[in-house]
Amino acid sequence: MNKGVEWAVHACALLAPLGAGRGLSLAALADYHGVPLPYMAKQMQLLSKAGIVRTSRGHTGGYALARPPQEISLWDIKQAVDGSAPAFRCTEIRQKGPCAVPRADCRAPCAIAAAFSRAENAYRDLLRAIRLSDILSDVTGEGNAQHMLGMLRWYEANVTVLPEKKPKAPAS
Amino acid sequence: MNKGVEWAVHACALLAPLGAGRGLSLAALADYHGVPLPYMAKQMQLLSKAGIVRTSRGHTGGYALARPPQEISLWDIKQAVDGSAPAFRCTEIRQKGPCAVPRADCRAPCAIAAAFSRAENAYRDLLRAIRLSDILSDVTGEGNAQHMLGMLRWYEANVTVLPEKKPKAPAS
Ligand code: FES
Ligand code: FES
Repeated sequence: MNKGVEWAVHACALLAPLGAGRGLSLAALADYHGVPLPYMAKQMQLLSKAGIVRTSRGHTGGYALARPPQEISLWDIKQAVDGSAPAFRCTEIRQKGPCAVPRADCRAPCAIAAAFSRAENAYRDLLRAIRLSDILSDVTGEGNAQHMLGMLRWYEANVTVLPEKKPKAPAS
Repeated sequence: MNKGVEWAVHACALLAPLGAGRGLSLAALADYHGVPLPYMAKQMQLLSKAGIVRTSRGHTGGYALARPPQEISLWDIKQAVDGSAPAFRCTEIRQKGPCAVPRADCRAPCAIAAAFSRAENAYRDLLRAIRLSDILSDVTGEGNAQHMLGMLRWYEANVTVLPEKKPKAPAS
């Protein structure tokens, strides 16, 4: 799995308490997580492309969640960063070799591919059931009161307000 | 995921009906699946290292299952070929940056890492519950009667008998 998934989920968790329209600059997001700016930028672009965050002024602008935290699952974020291809890829090996199964008999997936696909569905369903709002207090509230105070001060110094999205002009 | 997993599971499924001590040469395994011999060899070596198959004469010799098919799960095979590292790797990003959580407060895993770990456990448990014996008839019996007959002939021409494992001489 792309190691950017960890950064992306943490970035979303950091944005989650801010409320509609309030966000953080790319520099603040990278700084908070102690990761190089270009790496953070890559994840934020992928999150933006997937409609999970919105940005006000290109990739150096501020980022805010595009939906409420209870409507963003860990699966959404994982998929945005890591892609949606299944981990197990069946190359239809059963159709090769001296005893190849005829193509016409291969309409249903092979029992092996079907088993891996069931396992991946169980994985996906579990991550889909966990929303940003579920992990929020654990992630931002962990540590002691002093840490909490430090975070609040950091938020105060860094949170920006993104301009409202202009409603699109109706096509004439 | 390593694409060798598909070949490895299919190879084990092909060995599964043979009964104790009966096996197939590496050349036969590669030929049956229409994959290059060195690629097949790599998977068989990994399966051998994990104790899932045994071999009689090095990597060019015959391979047989080392345990009955009902004692080999898809998870065993996946893990043998793909390794056992978790897909999600937590780099403890929470301990970095200006609001780093103190190390002493990080004894429990981060809520994000814990969520991914629960999902991977669900994936693992599902693959662990599926044994070679469960998928056997689906894999070898798929296709029509003609295909089945072709397979039986192929088995007849290729199955080899592996010498019994000699019991180790007791340490003196
Ligand atoms: S043919 Fe792809 S897993 Fe069986
Ligand atoms: S610190 Fe690694 S996932 Fe949270």
